[in-house]
Amino acid sequence: MTMDAVKLVEVGARDGLQNEAQALPVEIRVELIERLAAAGLRTLEAGAFVSPRWVPQMAGSDEVLRRLGRRPGVTYTALVPNLKGLDAALEVDCREVAVFAAASEAFSQKNINCSIDESLQRFQPVLAKAAEQGVAVRGYVSCVLGCPFSGDVPVVDVVRVARELYAMGCYEISLGDTIGRGTPGSTRRLVEACASEVPITALAGHFHDTYGMAVANVQAALEAGVRVFDSSISGLGGCPYSPGATGNVATEELVYLFQGQGVATGVDLPALLEAGAFIDKALGKASASRVATALRSRASNQ
Amino acid sequence: MTMDAVKLVEVGARDGLQNEAQALPVEIRVELIERLAAAGLRTLEAGAFVSPRWVPQMAGSDEVLRRLGRRPGVTYTALVPNLKGLDAALEVDCREVAVFAAASEAFSQKNINCSIDESLQRFQPVLAKAAEQGVAVRGYVSCVLGCPFSGDVPVVDVVRVARELYAMGCYEISLGDTIGRGTPGSTRRLVEACASEVPITALAGHFHDTYGMAVANVQAALEAGVRVFDSSISGLGGCPYSPGATGNVATEELVYLFQGQGVATGVDLPALLEAGAFIDKALGKASASRVATALRSRASNQ
Repeated sequence: MTMDAVKLVEVGARDGLQNEAQALPVEIRVELIERLAAAGLRTLEAGAFVSPRWVPQMAGSDEVLRRLGRRPGVTYTALVPNLKGLDAALEVDCREVAVFAAASEAFSQKNINCSIDESLQRFQPVLAKAAEQGVAVRGYVSCVLGCPFSGDVPVVDVVRVARELYAMGCYEISLGDTIGRGTPGSTRRLVEACASEVPITALAGHFHDTYGMAVANVQAALEAGVRVFDSSISGLGGCPYSPGATGNVATEELVYLFQGQGVATGVDLPALLEAGAFIDKALGKASASRVATALRSRASNQ
Repeated sequence: MTMDAVKLVEVGARDGLQNEAQALPVEIRVELIERLAAAGLRTLEAGAFVSPRWVPQMAGSDEVLRRLGRRPGVTYTALVPNLKGLDAALEVDCREVAVFAAASEAFSQKNINCSIDESLQRFQPVLAKAAEQGVAVRGYVSCVLGCPFSGDVPVVDVVRVARELYAMGCYEISLGDTIGRGTPGSTRRLVEACASEVPITALAGHFHDTYGMAVANVQAALEAGVRVFDSSISGLGGCPYSPGATGNVATEELVYLFQGQGVATGVDLPALLEAGAFIDKALGKASASRVATALRSRASNQ
């Protein structure tokens, strides 16, 4: 496998904003996504069809999807917890959706109020209808390297959920280190185990920088053959059950990491930095991206 | 080569504090170093015998060295720019000193006011007298993956300086990515090139986290065979020529990284976190360590 190129899945406008305390209006979210797409990102989470009572940050996701200008080669995706969510996504002509499972029973219960098996059963009709409608489905597996409630998560549990989601029709399985506990060794073992049951081209890495390990884990996954990575502009997001913890690895860091090794991302870093500055300002907070912080400080000293 | 163990060189009390805006009194610096040694660090930078006019943060380094309680197996080191510095170090019975060279002409001129060759010549009598006195000398090479003034630095220039310092009698050569510009690919190539001229057991990695790449670069160097790494408690320090930029990789991050892979460091993480909290409070600033931030937030939520 060549290391020529990777695909970045930008999760800032959904996974990122969903885990920020502040809910942003539709206009800001649309502008963020448009800026990120203009910077060269080709797959972008745009919203979630979940109850705004539980997730106010994602209210108006239908409106976000409706307003986004279609761009050739760009896919806007939405999280759908069930058939009702899928129907809402179909109504706004969303061509890719995602379902969210956990590798840890404790996290599944706490996060989506059902067992892992119940969640997989719930996704069956979603996958069936999506297939019927020609809509691609991505599967997320959370807690792949540890659970905030139960601690260690056996690799076999991750492999089982990844395999079932893939068998069910998910075209890509995103392996999420929800609490950022992994290190390069455990990341490598995880990828190797999952790749024994799911084609490695169907695996994606989703790392959190809670302990500063995300970039090293992405590199380990890259070297193990993974070519799809989730990241979040300005490092938006986090885990709602780990207050104070940093969240998703910043898209800026991954673009810098890959550029430095000649691995193409298709992303224009200066345009990406501007998108980051835009959302930092909207949220009124400092960037969690070290690349953004360093390059802005350099620019302001020139 | 086994991946059983690494040696960490704690640079917080010298390289770290020297690059903080605030100068701390001797008592605080002594307590910091004592706490770090108690946490299990075995080689610790304790001061620099340079002019307090230029580096007020290192004033009283003789007093620091004098006050430190000797511990079996623990080495306190000092930076010495010249023979006068070495004499001052000898006076307080310092058993290991370090000299500081650059791989970039522009940086050498700006930082130590002389060419690379002039700096190497200046170190000759230092190395000779240190050998005579049975004092170990470590050599630093800065700008190994880029220079803040001249940009790219050819690997051959790094190899030359590393080789000359080693030939001159430095027992260990610390390769410093002063501006944190490296990525795992360039780090690996650098280590391989240097290891072709200097035994890899005599090479150390010194990474800055300016662009969030330090942990990934340490991992790349580890996989390339390096077993000695410099780090700074709480991520203290930075580069005086890159304002706003984060500095040295945090010791907490490296301990977490290595622990996660079963690589022994000899360091007790809870004790290390306490040493970090101590110096954060003394400086009145937040930790730059993500491990420290995450673990403290977890502890305060329990």
